Amino acid sequence: MSEPIWNKFLTERDKAVFETSGYGARQGFGKRPALLIIDVNYAFCDERPMPILESIKRWRNSCGEDAWVAMPYLKRLIDKAHEKGVPVIYTTGVRRADNWDSGSWRWKNDRADEDRSNRPETNVDGNDIVAEIAPGPKDIVIYKQKPSGFLGTNMASYLTLLGCDSVIVTGTTTSGCVRATVLDAFSLNYRISLAEEGCFDRSQASHAINLCDMNAKYADVVKTSEVLEFFGSLPSNLFDLPKGAPVAPHPSKR
Amino acid sequence: MSEPIWNKFLTERDKAVFETSGYGARQGFGKRPALLIIDVNYAFCDERPMPILESIKRWRNSCGEDAWVAMPYLKRLIDKAHEKGVPVIYTTGVRRADNWDSGSWRWKNDRADEDRSNRPETNVDGNDIVAEIAPGPKDIVIYKQKPSGFLGTNMASYLTLLGCDSVIVTGTTTSGCVRATVLDAFSLNYRISLAEEGCFDRSQASHAINLCDMNAKYADVVKTSEVLEFFGSLPSNLFDLPKGAPVAPHPSKR
Amino acid sequence: MSEPIWNKFLTERDKAVFETSGYGARQGFGKRPALLIIDVNYAFCDERPMPILESIKRWRNSCGEDAWVAMPYLKRLIDKAHEKGVPVIYTTGVRRADNWDSGSWRWKNDRADEDRSNRPETNVDGNDIVAEIAPGPKDIVIYKQKPSGFLGTNMASYLTLLGCDSVIVTGTTTSGCVRATVLDAFSLNYRISLAEEGCFDRSQASHAINLCDMNAKYADVVKTSEVLEFFGSLPSNLFDLPKGAPVAPHPSKR
Amino acid sequence: MSEPIWNKFLTERDKAVFETSGYGARQGFGKRPALLIIDVNYAFCDERPMPILESIKRWRNSCGEDAWVAMPYLKRLIDKAHEKGVPVIYTTGVRRADNWDSGSWRWKNDRADEDRSNRPETNVDGNDIVAEIAPGPKDIVIYKQKPSGFLGTNMASYLTLLGCDSVIVTGTTTSGCVRATVLDAFSLNYRISLAEEGCFDRSQASHAINLCDMNAKYADVVKTSEVLEFFGSLPSNLFDLPKGAPVAPHPSKR
Repeated sequence: MSEPIWNKFLTERDKAVFETSGYGARQGFGKRPALLIIDVNYAFCDERPMPILESIKRWRNSCGEDAWVAMPYLKRLIDKAHEKGVPVIYTTGVRRADNWDSGSWRWKNDRADEDRSNRPETNVDGNDIVAEIAPGPKDIVIYKQKPSGFLGTNMASYLTLLGCDSVIVTGTTTSGCVRATVLDAFSLNYRISLAEEGCFDRSQASHAINLCDMNAKYADVVKTSEVLEFFGSLPSNLFDLPKGAPVAPHPSKR
Repeated sequence: MSEPIWNKFLTERDKAVFETSGYGARQGFGKRPALLIIDVNYAFCDERPMPILESIKRWRNSCGEDAWVAMPYLKRLIDKAHEKGVPVIYTTGVRRADNWDSGSWRWKNDRADEDRSNRPETNVDGNDIVAEIAPGPKDIVIYKQKPSGFLGTNMASYLTLLGCDSVIVTGTTTSGCVRATVLDAFSLNYRISLAEEGCFDRSQASHAINLCDMNAKYADVVKTSEVLEFFGSLPSNLFDLPKGAPVAPHPSKR
Repeated sequence: MSEPIWNKFLTERDKAVFETSGYGARQGFGKRPALLIIDVNYAFCDERPMPILESIKRWRNSCGEDAWVAMPYLKRLIDKAHEKGVPVIYTTGVRRADNWDSGSWRWKNDRADEDRSNRPETNVDGNDIVAEIAPGPKDIVIYKQKPSGFLGTNMASYLTLLGCDSVIVTGTTTSGCVRATVLDAFSLNYRISLAEEGCFDRSQASHAINLCDMNAKYADVVKTSEVLEFFGSLPSNLFDLPKGAPVAPHPSKR
Repeated sequence: MSEPIWNKFLTERDKAVFETSGYGARQGFGKRPALLIIDVNYAFCDERPMPILESIKRWRNSCGEDAWVAMPYLKRLIDKAHEKGVPVIYTTGVRRADNWDSGSWRWKNDRADEDRSNRPETNVDGNDIVAEIAPGPKDIVIYKQKPSGFLGTNMASYLTLLGCDSVIVTGTTTSGCVRATVLDAFSLNYRISLAEEGCFDRSQASHAINLCDMNAKYADVVKTSEVLEFFGSLPSNLFDLPKGAPVAPHPSKR
């Protein structure tokens, strides 16, 4: 592994500690993975690449241009998974129109109620997955209200149904929903890899250190190319995927 | 709030992003808190204050001297909670003697099997809570195997039984079990404060950035003195606590 | 309590056992209840009162006329809860158009795939809550895929957000989703009452015996009139309810 | 299948309904099962076969002689699982000495506090698994506080770790912890069979009707001989079992 992105945020003592604690071992891939695309929707990406400090004015959760740097990596992962019949599971948010169910989110963010207000400048729904990587008819979409893709959802039931032993996780934010999803997958004893270039965050330090934490304790942080190679090595059509259901049209076309 | 510990790890862009995203609002305390003391056991603290790089040779999970800097803060919190009849819930680990149930932990740590090997130099069990802050007969001890104090435990059931609306979380590691516990409490819509000086980690950057992430999104990071003042302001004996039981080991250890 | 409905299904030994085991104690109501209306949708009720053996030909899950005997009781409970500002939480099912996510349901029912097939005789969606008791703008609707209203949903998070200590459960089927929801509420230490006349099932013996089991171990089976009286005794507007939102379909159905 | 035990408790209408609803289909075994032995401890079995109405005076949860009729079936299942290297997971209860954590159990049972009182007539711990079928060093024991073997435990994490796609469930009580465990396994999309003769309950009607409900909706109720045959058909040593940990001695020998 080349110099990891987090090294420049660590203290010298931290580097020495990580070297001796035994953490950061490489666990390797499993045999039956699902690809998890976490929260790559307009609220986190904006509708086009915009400097983050501009973008964040409209979309308080935006990660700005970094989202769009990640997009082609995400697309390659999804395309390859489709090609091999590997399950692709998307997560995104869902809220009542009156935002009551934002619950604890609202307590920590002064702009939480903007999500449901009228936005004169756009008619995109922030929870819509961005069109460039939008789910196809055999993909699985999980609607959630809290950081983890497992909490308050049927994710665990779906992974059992698919017979998965492992997950490839990527998307956004690294320090938020990606990490929360990784944590639950780890706690359920799934083997986890993170496709590094597909992960993004609005905070650079949080992005780097959360990758560091996850790589140390819960998951392998690997290059997207390694995941693609791994997918390529799998037998085709290992999984009993959904037969296919019509997907709602892109919101701009409704 | 004085300059937070995490600012020196953030980039300039990060600071600007956090300022405008709306995150980091102060939510305030609830009305019926429980105090959660996460994993303050010998495996994370060693048996005495030792330089971390020394300590970590014996106890791979040790946070070294920082654990012992936190100890008096933890003690003050626990004492005040006892005085007012606020529930104190401790978590610590539990493992089979053959370590089978370490599961995914073992995949990521080359030294995972040391936990169960003979230790000529000590007969302390790493999962024992350190004597200086050890639970009393009316305290609640939760044995867990994964980072979160909620996952695979009765934590949620206990909080309902106690009628809690909030938790004060502290202990170790900030980036590991503290964060995982905070995340689940957040997802269950409990109001959360972190007693900052009681939190510790083996990585300095992880400690700081995880406090930053949690303060931004999930919890208020506050000084221990604020929590003590808050406890002081509560009516006494709000809770129907356990009558008191001799502290029992996990049944598998009897 | 008058002779309970289940007595005629019990053996003499059973009655003697229940008398001496200590089970069946009355726990009483809590202080902050939510009303849970479980799965009162067209799939379980049909569109009008029909003899069950007729109805079940069209709707394999139908409970026939018993659903419509329960309906006025359900309506009274809901109206009273609305009047007092007690939260009303409805559950109903949700499925992909290709029925992949029926998972284990399909393994046990030869007619599972009918749910998604064309129904020349109706254009009602089986998962729609029946119009007679349909949710209003301040009510909460939970979409689920498995029996319990808690599993794979945000029910627990909502009950914490509302500060509930108890639930009044009613709806259908007594032996299926009602029981599963009661079981999880019990396990989370919520105090539970079942409004008896609002509960219905397609099997008479299952209805009676499941009420018996729940009354013995998990919940008080009480008359609807007792619940109404209890609601009447509560202070008004104890809860921070949703401000009100147009009732939205599950996002997958938009 | 011969006349099922529950038929004599059903009404004529019930039989007609079950025949047409599509429920009760046979799902068949999975490929990687675990054997779950639910709560076969002294509290539910007494220390020897005793008429239930006698036994229940001492052990309020006792199922009396039926427990001991089941015992040889349980033993055969466990022996065969051991022979083939199929994982055997036992559940049993655990409580604080002051019984605080009985929570909602205590609300519904007038005799709940007996569990912890002195018992002049015995020094057996009710939560100890009966010696005749006690766990061996490679077996897994899960301590729980609520009916389901999944709730508040690491059961789901263990099943993922073992790579199980299915569970064989048996033990006690049919209407209590067996049913609750089956329900959660169903909801997580595990394939489930119940070994009928190994299941027992203190109520005859509850036993029969809960088998009926589970067979209709969640699990196959099969003869123990079928499970033994199925185990016999499996390749040996499919699983990465625990290496073996010393098991605490029988309580009478401590």
